[in-house]
Amino acid sequence: MPQYTPPLRDMQFLMQEVLGLPARFAQLPAYADVDTGTMDAILEEAGKFAVEVVQPLNLSGDAEGCTRNPADSSVTTPKGFKEAYAKYVEGGWAALSCDSAYGGQGLPFVLNQCLYEMLNSANQAWAMYPGLSHGAYEALHVYGSDEQKKLYLPKLTSGEWTGTMCLTEPHCGTDLGLLRTKAEPQADGSYKITGNKIFISAGEHDMTDNIVHLVLARLPDAPKGSKGISLFLVPKFLVNADGSLGARNPISCSGLEHKMGIHGNATAQIAIDGAVGSLVGQPNKGLQAMFVMMNAARLGVANQSLGLMAVAYENALAYAKDRLQMRSLSGTKAKDLPADPIIVHPDVRRMLLTAKAYSEGGRAMMIATSALVDEELNHPDEAVRKAHAAQVALLTPILKAFLTDKGFEVTVLCQQVFGGHGYIHETGMEQLVRDARINMIYEGTNGIQALDLLGRKVLGDQGAALKALGKLVQGLVEEEGVNERMADFINPLAQLAGQMTGITTELGLKALQNPDEVGAAATDYLCVMGHLVMGYWWARMAQTALRALAEGDVADKTFYEGKLQTARFYFARLFPEAGLRVRTMRTGSKLLMNTDAALA
Amino acid sequence: MPQYTPPLRDMQFLMQEVLGLPARFAQLPAYADVDTGTMDAILEEAGKFAVEVVQPLNLSGDAEGCTRNPADSSVTTPKGFKEAYAKYVEGGWAALSCDSAYGGQGLPFVLNQCLYEMLNSANQAWAMYPGLSHGAYEALHVYGSDEQKKLYLPKLTSGEWTGTMCLTEPHCGTDLGLLRTKAEPQADGSYKITGNKIFISAGEHDMTDNIVHLVLARLPDAPKGSKGISLFLVPKFLVNADGSLGARNPISCSGLEHKMGIHGNATAQIAIDGAVGSLVGQPNKGLQAMFVMMNAARLGVANQSLGLMAVAYENALAYAKDRLQMRSLSGTKAKDLPADPIIVHPDVRRMLLTAKAYSEGGRAMMIATSALVDEELNHPDEAVRKAHAAQVALLTPILKAFLTDKGFEVTVLCQQVFGGHGYIHETGMEQLVRDARINMIYEGTNGIQALDLLGRKVLGDQGAALKALGKLVQGLVEEEGVNERMADFINPLAQLAGQMTGITTELGLKALQNPDEVGAAATDYLCVMGHLVMGYWWARMAQTALRALAEGDVADKTFYEGKLQTARFYFARLFPEAGLRVRTMRTGSKLLMNTDAALA
Repeated sequence: MPQYTPPLRDMQFLMQEVLGLPARFAQLPAYADVDTGTMDAILEEAGKFAVEVVQPLNLSGDAEGCTRNPADSSVTTPKGFKEAYAKYVEGGWAALSCDSAYGGQGLPFVLNQCLYEMLNSANQAWAMYPGLSHGAYEALHVYGSDEQKKLYLPKLTSGEWTGTMCLTEPHCGTDLGLLRTKAEPQADGSYKITGNKIFISAGEHDMTDNIVHLVLARLPDAPKGSKGISLFLVPKFLVNADGSLGARNPISCSGLEHKMGIHGNATAQIAIDGAVGSLVGQPNKGLQAMFVMMNAARLGVANQSLGLMAVAYENALAYAKDRLQMRSLSGTKAKDLPADPIIVHPDVRRMLLTAKAYSEGGRAMMIATSALVDEELNHPDEAVRKAHAAQVALLTPILKAFLTDKGFEVTVLCQQVFGGHGYIHETGMEQLVRDARINMIYEGTNGIQALDLLGRKVLGDQGAALKALGKLVQGLVEEEGVNERMADFINPLAQLAGQMTGITTELGLKALQNPDEVGAAATDYLCVMGHLVMGYWWARMAQTALRALAEGDVADKTFYEGKLQTARFYFARLFPEAGLRVRTMRTGSKLLMNTDAALA
Repeated sequence: MPQYTPPLRDMQFLMQEVLGLPARFAQLPAYADVDTGTMDAILEEAGKFAVEVVQPLNLSGDAEGCTRNPADSSVTTPKGFKEAYAKYVEGGWAALSCDSAYGGQGLPFVLNQCLYEMLNSANQAWAMYPGLSHGAYEALHVYGSDEQKKLYLPKLTSGEWTGTMCLTEPHCGTDLGLLRTKAEPQADGSYKITGNKIFISAGEHDMTDNIVHLVLARLPDAPKGSKGISLFLVPKFLVNADGSLGARNPISCSGLEHKMGIHGNATAQIAIDGAVGSLVGQPNKGLQAMFVMMNAARLGVANQSLGLMAVAYENALAYAKDRLQMRSLSGTKAKDLPADPIIVHPDVRRMLLTAKAYSEGGRAMMIATSALVDEELNHPDEAVRKAHAAQVALLTPILKAFLTDKGFEVTVLCQQVFGGHGYIHETGMEQLVRDARINMIYEGTNGIQALDLLGRKVLGDQGAALKALGKLVQGLVEEEGVNERMADFINPLAQLAGQMTGITTELGLKALQNPDEVGAAATDYLCVMGHLVMGYWWARMAQTALRALAEGDVADKTFYEGKLQTARFYFARLFPEAGLRVRTMRTGSKLLMNTDAALA
């Protein structure tokens, strides 16, 4: 069975040493009381919870899966899932970064993300049950009426109830404009909802008394397409004014999907048969409200792959030190053993270092972006809030697609380190690959993320958000440009950053003549931006490590030297992918579109 | 359920138009009677068999898997597998390229490979049962005694019995020198074999009356390590001198592995408890005999991924034409439909064209290499036989690793085209990904293939085999260098080929000083060689297509234009990976090996 050690040291390194979050959060009135000691203590407890309660259920949950009982459409989650969830609620974890007005602890979002990285490492399928609730919480927190907030937010905050996002229908996923679920206004101000949804994660389960479904549907007079979609709150059990549960609402699980992975999560087909719902936000503005959930969910998905990378790396590293096979090409290393541990082989190290570089680089991207979210929500200066919101909007598709693509690559490499044993269920490595695969697809496929990035977030605002990112990189380049010990990191970063303005302008001009140029370049463009952002953070981590080592008598020397070795590996062997992608990005749309004979 | 159409047109294009096999085979006395019409007819029948008999069992076989009966250690294969195998035997498919001295049809190996590509497209897990028999047939054909050949080859030829390769033990896979299974000589000249094997594909099943296990074991006086390994024939049931079955031999299935994929194939743990075996070949020379099987098996594994790519591409293409979602960025294409089919999106085309380019390029590599095998075995000129043997030895690890790496990438991309529906079992796409994953691992991981290529096949013979390949490429470059219509293909190919001699010499020199340089560069080197070989064949296919189109009134214009469009896509968007890999290849071993702090 896989092992897992929470990466507390690395999280502290990032939050305290690289990002200086204590000083930054001191400027936010909402977090005035949040001290470093508290955050450390919470992360330590969160790690224990992940290791002791959640991780032991990962392999067994995958093997067992969820079961639907046809008699009453109820769903039984794998053995132990329900009890683990009860402990999660009991421990107050659901409330961590929720609004104290509804019973939350009001702690930073970045802390919640760290909690979730660990839960995802331990058991992605399980973590999705509480994880999706948080998205529903966010949407209601922003768009819910006072009554909706009063009735539902305390229960979502405590974790007593969970939430879902009911978007997809059999004929529409990406293209929500095609959706058919109907909402008919009733005399009492409520709505009667009818339709069929599919792929609803955590759509039905036995963990809580109630489930709060947020459902996209169409009003009778709604305009066609995506401008005619409204959002409705449709609880599994109706809720009385005093908060007690009323009648069972006819919104139920009509089937469970047979999936490649995340078997422990109930991916439900949901039949809605005249269920009672209430409107969330304005009529026909449902997509806007849904995007609040969606953007949070996209960062959440990136965080899932981050968690999977971390646990895959830890296990591959342990296996590579333990498994004896062949001798080192450069001479026997373990004379007393019948063969050398496979970590002596350069190609095994290549796989391990790739996993480490993407895991720790990904963690830096995630924690840095999550800290921006905290400032976006809580900074006293509106200009800062706005600027950070634009940066988060730019970074969200990058993190979602880049970290889930690399996350899949990393789980596959770590599985490869195990050889044939990686293909067997018992080692847990093949499950990580299967689980990681969905992250490239759901909450908007990675192709859609790329279009969102290039079309909307970059070209859509004439490159303003991109320029702000470029300034950040430029700042580091100017700061460290003369430092020889940083040259391996700063030179390639400066070169790529210098190219991006020109390339983006070029793409923008091409796109004016032919919008397909955006689609043809978008996936490569996102990958290049992913390396630019990750390269920036690896350079920042190297800078911090060099400074720490320069102080002489360092307790944690191996940690900092390891950071430098990994940074060097990243820039020499992984970062150059950006150059290849710049090249293929510029091959243009005709190469793809003038292919009717090939695709006949 | 997935669809499948045998790629007969493409196989004929390669065999007849690109490779001119009819003329080449006319020079081989063994194939004097083999005419094109016969080969076409056989492939057509083979395709029907794959589509009608084998493919319908793929999804169900994956869902059902194999079952071991603890009472008698017997294994039941999924519903229908046994009956399909009986039809395979009845149709004479097992005998296709076997020696007529043992009842075979004596047809070319390349034809057998085409048959297997189609069987693999239809159902890799099923195709492994007869596929592994062929490896056992080959090893016995080369190294078996007259008596072993007489007793076993006719039954393996007819398919009445199947064969296995029993190599791996729990503590050793790659490093067979560590193996512990023992063989004690008996007074009657037989051996008593005792030990435990794992990961034995098709190790036990209910399809045939007998199974011929080829088992690696150690004689009592054997030298340590890989020089003390012998090969034994250990039948499930002993065989009497008249060919009838005798007593049950104590070699049995002690368990089945729970795997990521190929669920329909029984991956057995095999307990050998004093079973009677006979020596195959010379004592302590077992690895040599095993490599006959292994090399055939490595081409077989490449062929598995080729089959998976082809069927994945076909289904992704069909889905992309059928699935309506969003409008084209460059304006509505299907005005009468609620949305455009997703094939209008450039990024979807990128995924499809990548799949097509690697599938068809892979098929060219496979058919060309298989034809070399036919000439290696049957050419009247010994010099040709030797030269082709060296080429096949060079190409085998390239095909195994490059086509299985790209095969996995392609199945993942084709799954991505399906969006969320690709993650669900029913569409069959996720199964292709799970099945494709093992091909990167078994019969020597792809890391081992890379070491074999660079260390043994390239540097081991001072680059002689590489030079022969270089000459082939150079010939094409000289032939087409002035043809402007070939410039998109010839220029990048010539550039890379020109680089490879220098790079290889450089690596050879570095390796003399530090052997870890080989391990550090090998995986990149193999990928570059993969593109060099695939690039050569894409250029040859483009050349053939241009010549056919130049003839004016061509019946099959779309086919040839499609080849040109795909070749252009391959060279512009996929081939440049070689340049990136050349760059990372040269970063050297220190970057990987001086990382003890990072990997602490």
